[in-house]
Amino acid sequence: MTFCEPVSLADKLAQFSDHYNPRIIGNYNGNEIRVVKLQGDFTWHSHADTDELFLVVSGELGIRFRNGVRVLGPGEFLVVPKGVEHQPFADGECHVMLMDREGEPNTGSHPSVLTRAKLEAI
Amino acid sequence: MTFCEPVSLADKLAQFSDHYNPRIIGNYNGNEIRVVKLQGDFTWHSHADTDELFLVVSGELGIRFRNGVRVLGPGEFLVVPKGVEHQPFADGECHVMLMDREGEPNTGSHPSVLTRAKLEAI
Repeated sequence: MTFCEPVSLADKLAQFSDHYNPRIIGNYNGNEIRVVKLQGDFTWHSHADTDELFLVVSGELGIRFRNGVRVLGPGEFLVVPKGVEHQPFADGECHVMLMDREGEPNTGSHPSVLTRAKLEAI
Repeated sequence: MTFCEPVSLADKLAQFSDHYNPRIIGNYNGNEIRVVKLQGDFTWHSHADTDELFLVVSGELGIRFRNGVRVLGPGEFLVVPKGVEHQPFADGECHVMLMDREGEPNTGSHPSVLTRAKLEAI
């Protein structure tokens, strides 16, 4: 990441292929801009101290909430407020830009085998 | 804006046609998610207390810095760090998703005829 350089979401997404392993691609006001590839069900979790932004780049993203399900396509975003339990899922492969507060674990307040201890910056 | 509802960038951008008049379409960790249409030169300005994120939805966005020019296409973003002078411009019409700290004027610390006193939430 270089000072004031443009970042291509597609170029960053082309650098990895594993699922549910977000990469950090930028920083904004104490938050990390991340990209992630999803397929299948993630774990139910919430983030105690940060909202979480999902912006779909390609594919279809589902997010289950305790009171319903939302489905997003490319060019759509959704902000999960801090503390709200949610479970991302994708039937096919889905590419997403995320934003979380710096250092926030991908599984939030719910450590599991899916937790990535330290996210890689690419 | 409704709790945990998906937001379509294209649908929001279809609701207005004027240039350099950002609309607020969401909130994230004390920041506003905005969309704006640009054409021609904006004013040189900086934001003393907030980084500014530009993500191009369509068209081509230029940003002049005191030490160079950057040009971004669809699916590319750039974060202007707080305090850094910049001048957005677009030869053709360009549609952009922005992020700024809540309440930040569009012209930052440089009030002018281009300043929008209060941004509309749509």
